[in-house]
Amino acid sequence: MFHHSSKLQYEVRVDTPDPQFAKFLQQAIGGVEGEIRVAMQYFFQAMGARGDAKYRDMLMMTATEELSHIEFLGHAVALNLEGAPVTVQEEAAKDPIVNAIMGGMNPRHILSSGLSAMPVNANGVPFDMSHVYATGNLAADMTANAMAEGSGRVLASRLYNMTDDAGMKDMLSFLIARDTMHQQQWLAVIEELGGMEAMLPIPNSTPEEHEATEHSYYFLNTSLDEPTPEGRWTKGKSLDGKAEFSVVSPPEPLGQKPDLGKARKHSGAQKEQM
Amino acid sequence: MFHHSSKLQYEVRVDTPDPQFAKFLQQAIGGVEGEIRVAMQYFFQAMGARGDAKYRDMLMMTATEELSHIEFLGHAVALNLEGAPVTVQEEAAKDPIVNAIMGGMNPRHILSSGLSAMPVNANGVPFDMSHVYATGNLAADMTANAMAEGSGRVLASRLYNMTDDAGMKDMLSFLIARDTMHQQQWLAVIEELGGMEAMLPIPNSTPEEHEATEHSYYFLNTSLDEPTPEGRWTKGKSLDGKAEFSVVSPPEPLGQKPDLGKARKHSGAQKEQM
Amino acid sequence: MFHHSSKLQYEVRVDTPDPQFAKFLQQAIGGVEGEIRVAMQYFFQAMGARGDAKYRDMLMMTATEELSHIEFLGHAVALNLEGAPVTVQEEAAKDPIVNAIMGGMNPRHILSSGLSAMPVNANGVPFDMSHVYATGNLAADMTANAMAEGSGRVLASRLYNMTDDAGMKDMLSFLIARDTMHQQQWLAVIEELGGMEAMLPIPNSTPEEHEATEHSYYFLNTSLDEPTPEGRWTKGKSLDGKAEFSVVSPPEPLGQKPDLGKARKHSGAQKEQM
Amino acid sequence: MFHHSSKLQYEVRVDTPDPQFAKFLQQAIGGVEGEIRVAMQYFFQAMGARGDAKYRDMLMMTATEELSHIEFLGHAVALNLEGAPVTVQEEAAKDPIVNAIMGGMNPRHILSSGLSAMPVNANGVPFDMSHVYATGNLAADMTANAMAEGSGRVLASRLYNMTDDAGMKDMLSFLIARDTMHQQQWLAVIEELGGMEAMLPIPNSTPEEHEATEHSYYFLNTSLDEPTPEGRWTKGKSLDGKAEFSVVSPPEPLGQKPDLGKARKHSGAQKEQM
Amino acid sequence: MFHHSSKLQYEVRVDTPDPQFAKFLQQAIGGVEGEIRVAMQYFFQAMGARGDAKYRDMLMMTATEELSHIEFLGHAVALNLEGAPVTVQEEAAKDPIVNAIMGGMNPRHILSSGLSAMPVNANGVPFDMSHVYATGNLAADMTANAMAEGSGRVLASRLYNMTDDAGMKDMLSFLIARDTMHQQQWLAVIEELGGMEAMLPIPNSTPEEHEATEHSYYFLNTSLDEPTPEGRWTKGKSLDGKAEFSVVSPPEPLGQKPDLGKARKHSGAQKEQM
Amino acid sequence: MFHHSSKLQYEVRVDTPDPQFAKFLQQAIGGVEGEIRVAMQYFFQAMGARGDAKYRDMLMMTATEELSHIEFLGHAVALNLEGAPVTVQEEAAKDPIVNAIMGGMNPRHILSSGLSAMPVNANGVPFDMSHVYATGNLAADMTANAMAEGSGRVLASRLYNMTDDAGMKDMLSFLIARDTMHQQQWLAVIEELGGMEAMLPIPNSTPEEHEATEHSYYFLNTSLDEPTPEGRWTKGKSLDGKAEFSVVSPPEPLGQKPDLGKARKHSGAQKEQM
Repeated sequence: MFHHSSKLQYEVRVDTPDPQFAKFLQQAIGGVEGEIRVAMQYFFQAMGARGDAKYRDMLMMTATEELSHIEFLGHAVALNLEGAPVTVQEEAAKDPIVNAIMGGMNPRHILSSGLSAMPVNANGVPFDMSHVYATGNLAADMTANAMAEGSGRVLASRLYNMTDDAGMKDMLSFLIARDTMHQQQWLAVIEELGGMEAMLPIPNSTPEEHEATEHSYYFLNTSLDEPTPEGRWTKGKSLDGKAEFSVVSPPEPLGQKPDLGKARKHSGAQKEQM
Repeated sequence: MFHHSSKLQYEVRVDTPDPQFAKFLQQAIGGVEGEIRVAMQYFFQAMGARGDAKYRDMLMMTATEELSHIEFLGHAVALNLEGAPVTVQEEAAKDPIVNAIMGGMNPRHILSSGLSAMPVNANGVPFDMSHVYATGNLAADMTANAMAEGSGRVLASRLYNMTDDAGMKDMLSFLIARDTMHQQQWLAVIEELGGMEAMLPIPNSTPEEHEATEHSYYFLNTSLDEPTPEGRWTKGKSLDGKAEFSVVSPPEPLGQKPDLGKARKHSGAQKEQM
Repeated sequence: MFHHSSKLQYEVRVDTPDPQFAKFLQQAIGGVEGEIRVAMQYFFQAMGARGDAKYRDMLMMTATEELSHIEFLGHAVALNLEGAPVTVQEEAAKDPIVNAIMGGMNPRHILSSGLSAMPVNANGVPFDMSHVYATGNLAADMTANAMAEGSGRVLASRLYNMTDDAGMKDMLSFLIARDTMHQQQWLAVIEELGGMEAMLPIPNSTPEEHEATEHSYYFLNTSLDEPTPEGRWTKGKSLDGKAEFSVVSPPEPLGQKPDLGKARKHSGAQKEQM
Repeated sequence: MFHHSSKLQYEVRVDTPDPQFAKFLQQAIGGVEGEIRVAMQYFFQAMGARGDAKYRDMLMMTATEELSHIEFLGHAVALNLEGAPVTVQEEAAKDPIVNAIMGGMNPRHILSSGLSAMPVNANGVPFDMSHVYATGNLAADMTANAMAEGSGRVLASRLYNMTDDAGMKDMLSFLIARDTMHQQQWLAVIEELGGMEAMLPIPNSTPEEHEATEHSYYFLNTSLDEPTPEGRWTKGKSLDGKAEFSVVSPPEPLGQKPDLGKARKHSGAQKEQM
Repeated sequence: MFHHSSKLQYEVRVDTPDPQFAKFLQQAIGGVEGEIRVAMQYFFQAMGARGDAKYRDMLMMTATEELSHIEFLGHAVALNLEGAPVTVQEEAAKDPIVNAIMGGMNPRHILSSGLSAMPVNANGVPFDMSHVYATGNLAADMTANAMAEGSGRVLASRLYNMTDDAGMKDMLSFLIARDTMHQQQWLAVIEELGGMEAMLPIPNSTPEEHEATEHSYYFLNTSLDEPTPEGRWTKGKSLDGKAEFSVVSPPEPLGQKPDLGKARKHSGAQKEQM
Repeated sequence: MFHHSSKLQYEVRVDTPDPQFAKFLQQAIGGVEGEIRVAMQYFFQAMGARGDAKYRDMLMMTATEELSHIEFLGHAVALNLEGAPVTVQEEAAKDPIVNAIMGGMNPRHILSSGLSAMPVNANGVPFDMSHVYATGNLAADMTANAMAEGSGRVLASRLYNMTDDAGMKDMLSFLIARDTMHQQQWLAVIEELGGMEAMLPIPNSTPEEHEATEHSYYFLNTSLDEPTPEGRWTKGKSLDGKAEFSVVSPPEPLGQKPDLGKARKHSGAQKEQM
């Protein structure tokens, strides 16, 4: 069960409201790299967690933290929208602070939300929940979480670079920090469970007889004119410790030329196909 | 530039067509765990790759392989739809092979595609390209790729369990194998570049002064009644080698109570809010 | 059956074409507050209406009116796009009237529609029909309609404030007026049927034994540090006339700690979860 | 800031797992009538609230409660999926309890989530955040909330009718009860602020000179052959107390026949249009 | 301006209600091959029509007809849902007429719409307006319309085959007939304007110097092992009458190997990419 | 099976990087008129092709070519983003070359992709695969392909007009040329199979007794005040050669007034509807 306390997890201060930066910040709320995604992803993973209960607890605790991130970012968007012009005649529209506003801001911040945050990204595209990855497999989920936090911290760093506002930089430095922790937190689960060698291949419960292992450890060079890019993946022991990496180049098709024959009567095809 | 040869990468054989399994297989084509996603993800990452060109080549080569996976899976869907009833009177509809068809199959396999594959998932929801993750950051992208292949192999294993058809099991055992390789391939890039310690936190180019590092290494227990789940993430050296993990419990709000004051004139609010 | 007459329901005059305002106007066509939504919502409600036929007739009549609103708004968008630059060399691009165009307008008004209206919102996001709410419950539908018209009039008022064009202001003043009527029209159905006391709770046909009525009339204060916000909802007779409002603070969890146990064999989980 | 406690808001008990009912329950999680929607809607309204702070507090408190509803519904979905077949050979598949499963359940509950809840509706369509209505106008938002709770209680009642499971009926009776309260809670705000007469038309801050009031109070009969459906909306004092309702029938077009003339050079039209 | 008359364009009779067929029929309402699409497509094309006004009139007249098609199909869906079980105990659920219902019908026809039509397709996916193609180019639009009617008639024919109900077959035979007319109607515009030779290439207003015409008339064989499929497109006069078709095989890349060099500082990439 | 060679199909040269034009170019990648669409459309049509195998080969060959178009356009986007500001302080931001950037470019080109192409359109809306039309009917598919190439060439021509960059104009002149070929290529299939008269109505395999042919050849004038727009579609032999075109004006409703009666008990309606 969820509870709420009235103060924000982190202080939000905007020295110079910037409606265009409000649009940019939306990516951290409703973008695929944003906080709605991680909040909901950890929440749904927690609800489906099976096995050692501590991972479920951990997921729910961090899901809860991410809800708090949405909250302070939402406040940051609203503060950046203070002073945005809501009428074309308004004096504010002539203020140099908001000079490039009408072209650069999200018009729905005026038209639809009345100067507050929306669950959309920096292009105004609403977040959709298909981005909530929760597979029921702990290692797949931890990788998905590391991915989300990796792209999240990339985004926070880019936002940091795109503002001069001291308050916003301070808030973003907190977000960058928490993303640092969260990246490592999920990867630490993998390390604790024995590391990648033990976890791979995901899922590690697939019986070996379900796998055509003769195809499991070669890099396939599908290029007609490029040499194989050599690296850790082309030779040496595989990361799951079960085989040696090799290379297949060029690839030989192993299948047939597909042929579906004629269309069936009543199937809605043209007569010429039948 | 792309080229095509006429045979499939792997042989597709369906001993007993099963229109319901055709619906399930769609998840491997147009689902978030599927082949359109990885083909397009590696393709877009390759097009945006900066730095050592071998990673770009590697991405493009595997993108090309994934296009071939779409192709043989598409053929598998069509073969499973052979014999599906296209008229209610048809004898096939009474055949025990297709007895549960009308309720369990995707009706659009009859109505829209004329008994062939579609770029949709097992619920008939079309794939959308927002799932193509390509950040311009090599480590974030490699993590995204490992995630995609992890969930992809989970899916392929589940599909393997959901069919009795020897031909389909054979094809899926190939897919499971290639997902084994691809998972490791992307993680091997990280290992080659110095491993997680060197890569983390992603992006590792963020200047330290952009980060409130006092918040970078603690696990936040946001629960009111659960003890902190102890693990690799609560103590010991952080995975990036820069600090020690710790715990903050319970959390103290660091921010203000948000207050946006009154609504502005002409902002479309109710008078009572002004 | 539908019919059409050649003149617009209301006159559209654009004194000074403004391609950026064309983008803003799109919200009134293809936004969630827009006319496609209400036209389709009333149309689908009418098609599913059961009970007194006069409500079906009323819905269909107003659906028909809303189609006419799309039509004059679509013309307004096209007129605002007159003079938008279609080549970078064009003299018009240097005209002060269109000076901020390229950054502020929707590029698809040039690239995709050839200077005419599209079924998208002010961010260029296409309208999707999931926003057509039609439940088969008259009171729920009337509330949904009042909601749509409420947000629609908020939007029309904001658009009115965002233009200086006398023609556009005139057209919007008509739209504001019709939204005034339509808001009341749907609420009048509720009043006619006995008012909120008779209608609530929606659906009023749910047998009382299907409801845990001991939980039906308290406001739940889920905050850890805020006093209950007192108001009409915390004391006095409930709006459905059946009970007294009260407050529960703080909430007591009534359920168990969830635990799904171990993952099943063959479920695609990691071995460590089984 | 958000917090979590480990027990569910309400007890979840499933006497006879039913994977098909798990699919139905998804509508209450990820449907437009569901809990993700209301949780996020109240949360975003709270973040954008201006005016008397008690409404913000109220919104945030109930947003927090709705998060807890997602949580117990998510658990209910997982419990209903216990025993669903994960291999075609599995004995469970022959159990009469799960006899109709493969055709009637959501295949992604096996393939994608590993037997747990997803943020999708009963058709497997992911929730998208465009359904989070938050306008910055208190009366419009309260109406949107009443709408959401109205359709939510309709859904909960229908789900109650679609199950025989005593545990599920008990849980749904709680949900029905809370929806009863929440419907009234939002309407009580309107009553407290002076009732509909004071609130209407929404927004009540639009200056009267922005409205063509001669068009604000008539019902438009757009039918060619139906008499005007008489009712509260055709005569008597308007609900905002400002005028008398009337009828216009048949409607007279007030606008011009639209004509965009010829296509411009370089606009991508056919020569024949220029 | 639109008007409505109370009778349906065509009679709808359902002899044996079939909730599963109701789901199938949804494809003709809210599918990409369906009536919402064509109604809205012709409507938006009409609103953007430039050039000879008769094409605009024609588009608007047929848009209006298509709205009437939505209407009778919506009624057909509702009639097919009569008798669907709304409680699990209901006697109707045991009726052989509705025996396969729960697995095969769209659960939202019970849960969300209360036994009536929805603006969704046969998978329950809502129609989205991105499928409304209106380019401002008459020939492109006519082709888009012929495409929509072609796939629409394919769908109607398949639906005809999927039902035994005499009433439904009668209604669908009308729909098939109207799709016959509408296909030809749009192609007749092209014929009237001089036929394909005059219309092609679309847009025929592109100045020849904007086109690298040396690449305009060869078929590119991108296969490594298949001979060129010979046909009308490999030799003879081009359809626009301007050149002879030829073949290029195998293709020679005309461009460079792409190389974006190193990542820029502050761009959010990894250090190793810089 | 697919293969790749390292050079682009066509040379990409950008003389003056223009981040706003990068946004425009996205329409040609991820727009409905773009290359992802045609690549995937031809690919899925090829996978479902039945009948003469040469059409399948042709489809797959051109699908392969379109993948190469995505590739060079993706490179063009990245080259146009060179020099876009990634920090607000950066000198580049003051360069006249990029002066209008921040308002006019897609912010996600900085925030999400790190200065490279994305699978989105010019509004930043991701491509979704519902636009991949593949019906299993050869004539319907060829029409869909002609439509896609028609709108594609309209787009390419408009993009050509919107840039002054010689390199971009050169690349677009190639794209315009290939779209010329591809339009004709698909229409040539229809010509080869006997032309429109033989192909129409699509599908030409629908038995005549499934069609109410008395409704197949009249244009329906649904306007109340406009004369029938006369043309090739109102008189003369129909394009399928089977009848004469005629006109029905005004239309007579052929159906009943719909009436669903009262709502059923337990259906979630209001009591007043029952």
